[in-house]
Amino acid sequence: MKIILKKDVFLNSIKAVKGIVGSRSVQPILSSILIETVSTDRITLTTTDLNLSISYTTNAEVVKEGKIAIGAKVIEEIITKLPDNKDISIELNEETNVIVIKSEKTKYDVITLNPNEFPNVYRRSDFSNLNEDEKQFEILTKDLNKAIKQTAFSAVQNEVGGVLTGICFTINENTLETVATDGNRLTRSRIPINSKGENLTFICAYRTLMELSKLISLVDDKTVKFTVLPNRILFEFENIFFQSGLIDGTYPRYQQLIPTTNEKIATIDREKLINTIDRVSVMVNNRTNIMKFNFEDSSLEISTDTPEAGSAKENMDIQYISENLLIAFNYKYVLDVLRNIQNEKIRIEMSTNLSATVIKPEESEEENSGDSYLCLIMPVQVR
Amino acid sequence: MKIILKKDVFLNSIKAVKGIVGSRSVQPILSSILIETVSTDRITLTTTDLNLSISYTTNAEVVKEGKIAIGAKVIEEIITKLPDNKDISIELNEETNVIVIKSEKTKYDVITLNPNEFPNVYRRSDFSNLNEDEKQFEILTKDLNKAIKQTAFSAVQNEVGGVLTGICFTINENTLETVATDGNRLTRSRIPINSKGENLTFICAYRTLMELSKLISLVDDKTVKFTVLPNRILFEFENIFFQSGLIDGTYPRYQQLIPTTNEKIATIDREKLINTIDRVSVMVNNRTNIMKFNFEDSSLEISTDTPEAGSAKENMDIQYISENLLIAFNYKYVLDVLRNIQNEKIRIEMSTNLSATVIKPEESEEENSGDSYLCLIMPVQVR
Repeated sequence: MKIILKKDVFLNSIKAVKGIVGSRSVQPILSSILIETVSTDRITLTTTDLNLSISYTTNAEVVKEGKIAIGAKVIEEIITKLPDNKDISIELNEETNVIVIKSEKTKYDVITLNPNEFPNVYRRSDFSNLNEDEKQFEILTKDLNKAIKQTAFSAVQNEVGGVLTGICFTINENTLETVATDGNRLTRSRIPINSKGENLTFICAYRTLMELSKLISLVDDKTVKFTVLPNRILFEFENIFFQSGLIDGTYPRYQQLIPTTNEKIATIDREKLINTIDRVSVMVNNRTNIMKFNFEDSSLEISTDTPEAGSAKENMDIQYISENLLIAFNYKYVLDVLRNIQNEKIRIEMSTNLSATVIKPEESEEENSGDSYLCLIMPVQVR
Repeated sequence: MKIILKKDVFLNSIKAVKGIVGSRSVQPILSSILIETVSTDRITLTTTDLNLSISYTTNAEVVKEGKIAIGAKVIEEIITKLPDNKDISIELNEETNVIVIKSEKTKYDVITLNPNEFPNVYRRSDFSNLNEDEKQFEILTKDLNKAIKQTAFSAVQNEVGGVLTGICFTINENTLETVATDGNRLTRSRIPINSKGENLTFICAYRTLMELSKLISLVDDKTVKFTVLPNRILFEFENIFFQSGLIDGTYPRYQQLIPTTNEKIATIDREKLINTIDRVSVMVNNRTNIMKFNFEDSSLEISTDTPEAGSAKENMDIQYISENLLIAFNYKYVLDVLRNIQNEKIRIEMSTNLSATVIKPEESEEENSGDSYLCLIMPVQVR
């Protein structure tokens, strides 16, 4: 194989695929990038962690076709350090598996891995003809990114697996609903989508969506095409082909958990509330993260204390005319949702100090789009 | 005690003294800041790690005099989060040792430590009258900072102690000479100073000088007054009083180690050399850091290799007319000194591939100030 391409083009390609490459992989091949020539002027870079894979196709002068597998870390470091705006030539010595990388007066000989050991990953060509099991949708990258970012933080974030480490997607009646929960809180986001009459539910891993979200943030506002198979999902946008396994299992029936009749309603300036919680949090007990919220006529006192360190409290003016309520939450759950709302004001809907509380943006009559975003938080019992 | 002061004034004071506060101190009092009223409108903040201490004096409205010792981390976090440009009041409840911090609608009750447990540290007042053991000098902050930064990186950087963990200062004939060495390399810097006829040598710990350097960088260009006692050094500048123990022991006689007759001389563009070394370093063996430098007629080839990974090499044009020489160094030592030189060109003075090599700025006849800066590096033997 021999290819010639510009530094910047090559570096962008590497950055697009390197996210899922483990630095602590047991199998060295999983730390590598597979670089393949695909036509006389295009190459594809591919990485995989076995569950998910990313392919990025870009322009290059293909002098001789072929493929190589090279450590992601070393190739990124080399290309980063080579001079800007210059051509880089990469040539494989097929006998020694050594590739020669040249630019200006610099020459690297890098020992590479056997590209035939690179795991088989799904290719765009594997899905050239949809069959009836494959459902295909289109969505704006910014909408998909918003749906992920607004909910993913509530998912269980560990490697053990299980449905709660994923985000549940439901497509129904031209709405894409995403939900994540860790058992103590639940967030739900709804955005419009052209569902073409399809009804569909699937669970996609937190880690997969974080990688996808990072990639989406790199591209300009475009459309993402995604294809759902019984156990797999494919995303296509710009030069990127991203595919991942789905989580097998049944997601909890969350609809019935969301209270609709909470009658104690506070309306609060979002940014002021964030700042107050942040100031009071200095004295929070880091083992429990418990913060007390005392709602009284038009006023909210937020307080916290840690026996050996001290206490903090602050009052703020709010809209609240129901009866007094002292309720406590893990303050991090409250901050997480407040930071994912853009509206100036938020609404807290409560019933008792032990029942599920709903936090959502305060929307005017016109912009009310049917609870497009909400977060349910279970209070913490305090003496 | 009760004081009132502006957030920004208080935060700057905390930032000035907090550097030496250990977060893992065995004694909690060493993690605290001692805040004392010193007059009707001034307070002093002090921290210590027993060997060195920093005091910072600033303006405050002193309503009631007294002193407190409060955890550096918690007070910094509180003051950082309070609103900008507002007054903060701090009041001690003498019975409970709880201080009440108030600003706008926020109130903190913080449990403090017993200020009488704060270690005795040297005060400015302890040295109000110089006696004959005390030598006092003045130097520009920028000159002192340069002398420290240009040499300190060559000192042994561990906590075990010994003279090589310090920088050796020698004051003689209106010159301040600073030297650091770890046995494989040595750097020497010389700057003018008014020595008032005094001759003096002392060894100051790397850690002390790093803290001092950080503080100096915070202040505008001013004069530092420093006083050397037999076992202690005091620095005074702006509102800061900084004192530290000195390292006891005899520094190696380094003068005789510096070669003066190396006749193989290369003159090289500094920035190009840094970039070339940086590019070639990708393939360096991280266990040895060995890089080979092959000097030939007007040319330098820099190369390195690691058996299991590969190799790299690059040629550059230089000024060199002596006989060919292949010499190897720990490339990090070379980069360290190159990055501390400002001149456009540097000079490498060599003799054999096993003898001490000198790297220094290439100075024109006019600016030649008698080898104001040089670094000696021992080559590494390669097959």
